[in-house]
Amino acid sequence: MSRIICVGLGPGDPDLMSVKAARLLGSVVQVAYFRKAGRRGQARQIVEGLLAPGAAEFPMEYPVTTELDVSDPAYNAALARFYDEWTTKLVQLTRNGDVIVLCEGDPFLYGSFMHLHSRLQGLVPVEVVPGITGMSGCWTATGQPVVWGDDVLSVLPGTLPEQELAKRAMGNDALVFMKIGRNLAKIRRVLAESGRAEAAWLVEHGTMPNQKIARLVDVDDEACPYFAIIIVHGQGRRPEIVA
Amino acid sequence: MSRIICVGLGPGDPDLMSVKAARLLGSVVQVAYFRKAGRRGQARQIVEGLLAPGAAEFPMEYPVTTELDVSDPAYNAALARFYDEWTTKLVQLTRNGDVIVLCEGDPFLYGSFMHLHSRLQGLVPVEVVPGITGMSGCWTATGQPVVWGDDVLSVLPGTLPEQELAKRAMGNDALVFMKIGRNLAKIRRVLAESGRAEAAWLVEHGTMPNQKIARLVDVDDEACPYFAIIIVHGQGRRPEIVA
Ligand SMILES: C[S@@+](CC[C@H](N)C(=O)[O-])C[C@H]1O[C@@H](n2cnc3c(N)ncnc32)[C@H](O)[C@@H]1O
Ligand SMILES: C[S@@+](CC[C@H](N)C(=O)[O-])C[C@H]1O[C@@H](n2cnc3c(N)ncnc32)[C@H](O)[C@@H]1O
Repeated sequence: MSRIICVGLGPGDPDLMSVKAARLLGSVVQVAYFRKAGRRGQARQIVEGLLAPGAAEFPMEYPVTTELDVSDPAYNAALARFYDEWTTKLVQLTRNGDVIVLCEGDPFLYGSFMHLHSRLQGLVPVEVVPGITGMSGCWTATGQPVVWGDDVLSVLPGTLPEQELAKRAMGNDALVFMKIGRNLAKIRRVLAESGRAEAAWLVEHGTMPNQKIARLVDVDDEACPYFAIIIVHGQGRRPEIVA
Repeated sequence: MSRIICVGLGPGDPDLMSVKAARLLGSVVQVAYFRKAGRRGQARQIVEGLLAPGAAEFPMEYPVTTELDVSDPAYNAALARFYDEWTTKLVQLTRNGDVIVLCEGDPFLYGSFMHLHSRLQGLVPVEVVPGITGMSGCWTATGQPVVWGDDVLSVLPGTLPEQELAKRAMGNDALVFMKIGRNLAKIRRVLAESGRAEAAWLVEHGTMPNQKIARLVDVDDEACPYFAIIIVHGQGRRPEIVA
């Protein structure tokens, strides 16, 4: 029986995808991926030149992205319908053989495939191949370790309401904010309040050709791309440098 | 000028290392790795059969692991000396060409290489290749996404004192406890107190041949291997399944 295989592609540099991901990409001839309507799609971009010859492509275009608020019931209804429909289509495609679904980073860390994964249970065999997360790519790009010794790492979606974000960012050692985009100004305020603005780094398009790294205080903008992460590195326990 | 390249190897399955890691392993002929004295070493195990023909190996054996408490000044002194010495030796080795340092998972997430990395600054060029983290390998193995929508993910070292661990685990959505080993009983108490014991999974040796996955409540032991992770999956926002 054919399978649906969700392949984590890593942070962006194709060299950072796993050996397993590269092998699957080169051999499976049905490839689906999410993208915003009218865009190329980040996941598709990463695999440029790496798909099997003659592979059939199935772009899954989100019916909404930022036009509606996530709390709007219409947003949820539109997305639920979209995931339901693609579940049906992907199951149909497995009649022809395996289907790969591309995913940026690691699929089970806020990946859209999760919504297909839950719907596909019991219908066809599903496999997930983990990937290097966007945040790993980004903190490596800053050239500084993210957690030491007993440091706690908190990964926070920038989409959280400001008060909630402030509460969750308190008393923590290392912080990673994801889903920045329009939430940049809000995250700036949260960091300023907790006295960590000076320590924060903004990484846009980590490991991609257009990677940008800057201290957050040196960036003037009020918004940034969707593929951006803010990192506050931990400063935990470590054996002293004697030299 | 030759470089020191720390290569993240991913969670354990060699197929999950990056294309870049595999290529470096197959071409660089000086390979160093940490291990406990008298052991094979987990990182070395992962690359079995993948090193360049004739590669010279440099096991870096920890002078202490669990014999001394991390708060003991003697522990810190011994490790500081150890990292200082290996810094010198690795710099010397770069006279012969590049040196690879192996690292499980992603190097900048609690990896021992971080202590060499800080010491090597300004001495020789250093590169770090990110890897799939142990936790990504483990939550993928549980077959359940770790964070949805606005879920916050907290990564907690099991080495933290119980009270601190309890405080940091409160009010969070998804939890990952690392460095379990002898800390299992403590983590169990923390999870029971916060009402999340029933939801916790224990993954030992994730993605390795001896992988073990179980609900924490089904495990009787008071301790477990060092390569183990406890996961409480987030249950955040997602568009309803209509079907
Ligand atoms: C819906 S989440 C998916 C995360 C992905 N599954 C992962 O493991 O990184 C999308 C968010 O990931 C982050 N992200 C992923 N890759 C990134 C990269 N290369 N550079 C910067 N941010 C990235 C951004 O914060 C973005 O808003
Ligand atoms: C010193 S930390 C290093 C983490 C590593 N750099 C990473 O990215 O996963 C060691 C801890 O990682 C976790 N770990 C790493 N790989 C693992 C695996 N394959 N299965 C279970 N736990 C793992 C365990 O909790 C272990 O105590």
